[in-house]
Amino acid sequence: MTPILENNLIDRLVSRFRRSPIQSNGLHEADAELIRVSNDLTLALTTDTIAEEIAVGLYADPWLIGWMTAMVNLSDLAAVGAEPIGLLVSEILPQACGDEFLDELQRGIEDACSACGTFILGGDTNRGENLVLTGTAVGRCPHDAFLSRRGCTAGDRLYATGSLGGGNAFALSVLLLAAQQTAHGNVAQLDYRPTARLVEGRSLVGLATSCMDTSDGVLATLDQMSRLNGVGFELDSHWEGTLDPRAKDVAAAAGIPPWLLLAGQHGEFELLFTVPQDSEDDLRRVAAKCGWAPVPLGRVIEMTGVVLPLYGEVRKIDTARIRNCSADAGNDVGNYLRQLLAIEHDIRKGVLHHAND
Amino acid sequence: MTPILENNLIDRLVSRFRRSPIQSNGLHEADAELIRVSNDLTLALTTDTIAEEIAVGLYADPWLIGWMTAMVNLSDLAAVGAEPIGLLVSEILPQACGDEFLDELQRGIEDACSACGTFILGGDTNRGENLVLTGTAVGRCPHDAFLSRRGCTAGDRLYATGSLGGGNAFALSVLLLAAQQTAHGNVAQLDYRPTARLVEGRSLVGLATSCMDTSDGVLATLDQMSRLNGVGFELDSHWEGTLDPRAKDVAAAAGIPPWLLLAGQHGEFELLFTVPQDSEDDLRRVAAKCGWAPVPLGRVIEMTGVVLPLYGEVRKIDTARIRNCSADAGNDVGNYLRQLLAIEHDIRKGVLHHAND
Repeated sequence: MTPILENNLIDRLVSRFRRSPIQSNGLHEADAELIRVSNDLTLALTTDTIAEEIAVGLYADPWLIGWMTAMVNLSDLAAVGAEPIGLLVSEILPQACGDEFLDELQRGIEDACSACGTFILGGDTNRGENLVLTGTAVGRCPHDAFLSRRGCTAGDRLYATGSLGGGNAFALSVLLLAAQQTAHGNVAQLDYRPTARLVEGRSLVGLATSCMDTSDGVLATLDQMSRLNGVGFELDSHWEGTLDPRAKDVAAAAGIPPWLLLAGQHGEFELLFTVPQDSEDDLRRVAAKCGWAPVPLGRVIEMTGVVLPLYGEVRKIDTARIRNCSADAGNDVGNYLRQLLAIEHDIRKGVLHHAND
Repeated sequence: MTPILENNLIDRLVSRFRRSPIQSNGLHEADAELIRVSNDLTLALTTDTIAEEIAVGLYADPWLIGWMTAMVNLSDLAAVGAEPIGLLVSEILPQACGDEFLDELQRGIEDACSACGTFILGGDTNRGENLVLTGTAVGRCPHDAFLSRRGCTAGDRLYATGSLGGGNAFALSVLLLAAQQTAHGNVAQLDYRPTARLVEGRSLVGLATSCMDTSDGVLATLDQMSRLNGVGFELDSHWEGTLDPRAKDVAAAAGIPPWLLLAGQHGEFELLFTVPQDSEDDLRRVAAKCGWAPVPLGRVIEMTGVVLPLYGEVRKIDTARIRNCSADAGNDVGNYLRQLLAIEHDIRKGVLHHAND
């Protein structure tokens, strides 16, 4: 498979690091690090920085910046089935951020913690040129049981915890439509407020054979799960029905085909997960008991990669090329979108893979 | 007491946050957050960002940046007497950082972990304009026993885990002497490589009545401990003997009086701690068994603030004014040093306090 530039960077960065003997997961294998601190306690640890989203103007509202700082980390706990213990937040605050901005930022952080029944435990503050927020979430996996990205096999069914495409639709509405003043009339800015799927994740422990959150978009998530498991994913013929209707409206207004809502790398923070085919009834029962409904999305296949019905054919998508767009483009959103549209153009023309694929 | 601008900012930032019911420490009360996750396990959690030190040119060597990212956090674990479980590191990497730079950065992180018998458990990478490193350390306090900044009373003895002034001497040598090309000849750049006092911190649990690391310099540390405990500190007449001899050389070369090595806010990452007067023998015995020697520094007094023998008199130092220098100066090192020298000037002239003190 074509290498992923971000994975290569991470592999290089960690190449010198020894692994802890009490760490249960390998590199890339879980959304949070799983650390067995005693016979009956495994901690889940994760850290995530919000910087690029602020730098490119995607997150401008201070409340949303605060909310996302907590939520992206809580979502990683959800994806391993952990219960949050709490969060730490380190903030680099430019002098230009006034009291009102700071109050909204902190309110967003607190609202996210409150929505997930958890707490800010501590943090650090620094002064600097650019606003940067780094969250760290600590959770626990009772009974040493957790979810990881690894374990699915061909034949398993693929599900999502909710409707898809909202993350990229939000990015489109902020970065493209707001700038273009589209001729399609006013598209209301999407109410983007993902909530970590903690209840859903917990209920999947012991049921799901693999799980990962869509923090980087659906196709990037499936690509990563494909690499880790040596399998592939085929989306059902009705995959467009899993898209958030408001997200489809935004794509239509932007003149962008719906499947690109899965391709962009600004995620909706749902969980994608797999269960064995004979566990589908159990899944529905367990989920109903916890008050949610799994969204069927497709199945696990033997051939690695991602295939989906598109323009009348089942097509293999060059997910590596899609993932590498963002690394190539740096923080240049226009360049990133042009690259995505070039991929769309090739797919319509039937050019499905690079020569080196 | 005169308010501390940084404390005010923190108080404002956390004013909306609910406290976790399983958190053992109050705000400002410990170097790491103390979280009681079960009857026999209290976690110690801390996060610290290295950004300002890079922005002002204090940390330019990538190995040192990596080393400090891990060590500032491990030092917080040391100050509560915790054993490290591991660290997470989030990195914002500018495109300009080449492979060689990144390799050295990661080597510094790994060397620090290795020196403290711990591990990097995971992290996050982002692209951005400025290099920013955020570390998070997770530790455990066996038997629910830990150190905090609170608990000392008048009459207790004040100690350090090692010689003082190295942090500010390093800052002087990098930021002032290197620029000035001093007429005093070449002053070799100090080998600045603080190591978290984990063994020392652990051995103090049950003995020390308060403990805090000198990450922000000695006087800032004593000021904070004074505020939290409603007591003060008087340094012994031999306090100059606790300064690192190489640090004194740097101060002499820079034409700066030795006591400013305690005032600057770039720390040496020693622990300052107090023990009851009748526990001094126990302290020496326990420390010797663990292979270290406590450095006597002074005593706890009833009057809040910090007093030390200086220019033939026991003088009260305006530590609030010293601490607020750095907040006032932002990242302007020249401005910061000018403010410190103005304080020195006032002290020599006998103007010891601001009118509002």
